[in-house]
Amino acid sequence: MKNVKLIIEYDGTLYSGWQIQDNAITIQEVLENALNSITGEQIKVVGSSRTDSGVHARGYVCNFFTESKIPPDRFRDVINSKLPKDIVIIESEEVSLEFNSRFCSKGKTYSYTILNRMQRPAIGSNYVYHYRNSLNMEAIREAMSQFLGTHDFSAFKSTGGSAKTSIRTIKSFEVVKKDDYIIFYITGDGFLYNMVRIIMGTLIKVGRDKIDSCSIKDIILSKDRNMAGPCLPGTGLCLEKVYY
Amino acid sequence: MKNVKLIIEYDGTLYSGWQIQDNAITIQEVLENALNSITGEQIKVVGSSRTDSGVHARGYVCNFFTESKIPPDRFRDVINSKLPKDIVIIESEEVSLEFNSRFCSKGKTYSYTILNRMQRPAIGSNYVYHYRNSLNMEAIREAMSQFLGTHDFSAFKSTGGSAKTSIRTIKSFEVVKKDDYIIFYITGDGFLYNMVRIIMGTLIKVGRDKIDSCSIKDIILSKDRNMAGPCLPGTGLCLEKVYY
Repeated sequence: MKNVKLIIEYDGTLYSGWQIQDNAITIQEVLENALNSITGEQIKVVGSSRTDSGVHARGYVCNFFTESKIPPDRFRDVINSKLPKDIVIIESEEVSLEFNSRFCSKGKTYSYTILNRMQRPAIGSNYVYHYRNSLNMEAIREAMSQFLGTHDFSAFKSTGGSAKTSIRTIKSFEVVKKDDYIIFYITGDGFLYNMVRIIMGTLIKVGRDKIDSCSIKDIILSKDRNMAGPCLPGTGLCLEKVYY
Repeated sequence: MKNVKLIIEYDGTLYSGWQIQDNAITIQEVLENALNSITGEQIKVVGSSRTDSGVHARGYVCNFFTESKIPPDRFRDVINSKLPKDIVIIESEEVSLEFNSRFCSKGKTYSYTILNRMQRPAIGSNYVYHYRNSLNMEAIREAMSQFLGTHDFSAFKSTGGSAKTSIRTIKSFEVVKKDDYIIFYITGDGFLYNMVRIIMGTLIKVGRDKIDSCSIKDIILSKDRNMAGPCLPGTGLCLEKVYY
């Protein structure tokens, strides 16, 4: 028995997220179907996180157990030959039997991309959140710094997640501007359900002076979801990397 | 009678390029249909260049004459309401009756994006040219510098273009690397048919040490298309800006 770890890139546009569910196509299902047809086994893949509908990944990590004789580093090319064009295995390797992509994760980096201009996007519309109005970037940067550190992020999660605690540590939070694109990179030990998208919705309100940039700490302390901003669409979100 | 100039962004994936042709959908046709339904006129749009099938644009420029009472700067929003999601007007403005987007152009900037890694792209596959093998970037940079200046670029054009002369001036040629993406920006007073894509195909050969980086000047002087590299696919190409 071998434990094989995969790093995956996928375009989430046509999928209902990572996790298998009834009546909807998911990344996990497509991947398991490919693995089953290759190995003849009934493989269950362990994913590092549930990504939502329309969310993308450049460095998703998962693992699975197999009795297959295929060398673990060869799995990459064999699986890729069975996958649709919007999912690709970047790397496959054998890991210890104890490795679990979800529970062993030490952290993740997500990016969130905003196209900030009057006109809707024609190029890459599935990879951005389009926001028309001008944003006060100075206020946004000031607000971003207050997310850093260890906090109870109850105010920044949607109901329905399975996490036992709402305490998380944000290790870094950066923003890059390129023409009309604003790209945020946030790294933490883990993220609650919809947490990145609600943080982004809160930053938009800060950028419109609807929430004071200094009040982020108060919103965190309130643990009140109603104090934070809206949950932005999944299109702008991309899981960049999972750390072990 | 007014002359209206448009700046357009489009995703060329589903189109057979800019220029109207039989039995294929083009950007020009979709735009003219929108204009005709708005104005009730039979408008012919003058485009700044023919882009090929699958090629994209962030700053395509065109112009058209109209008797419409719609204020020229309002055309943007009115046309956008009639366009599909992969074409968008960024700007509309009135220009002098002498303005011709093709003949008044003083230069253009194109970008060409290569995804340089073993695995095919899953995200944004319509916006890159995928190249598997490693590239000698030092040799590529050395070769790029030799394209600068005024030359007869006959060796770097496909047959079928309508240009009267093959002499063009390359004003700048830069490259940016971001993770596995290599993005080239080339600015010139004009480009021959397939010229950017053939220059890129030549640079790939330089990067694989199949063409010596110092021999670009000789290839230019030869005026022989067979000396240059292949014409790379249109997916990686994007018309960034047209100068007047």
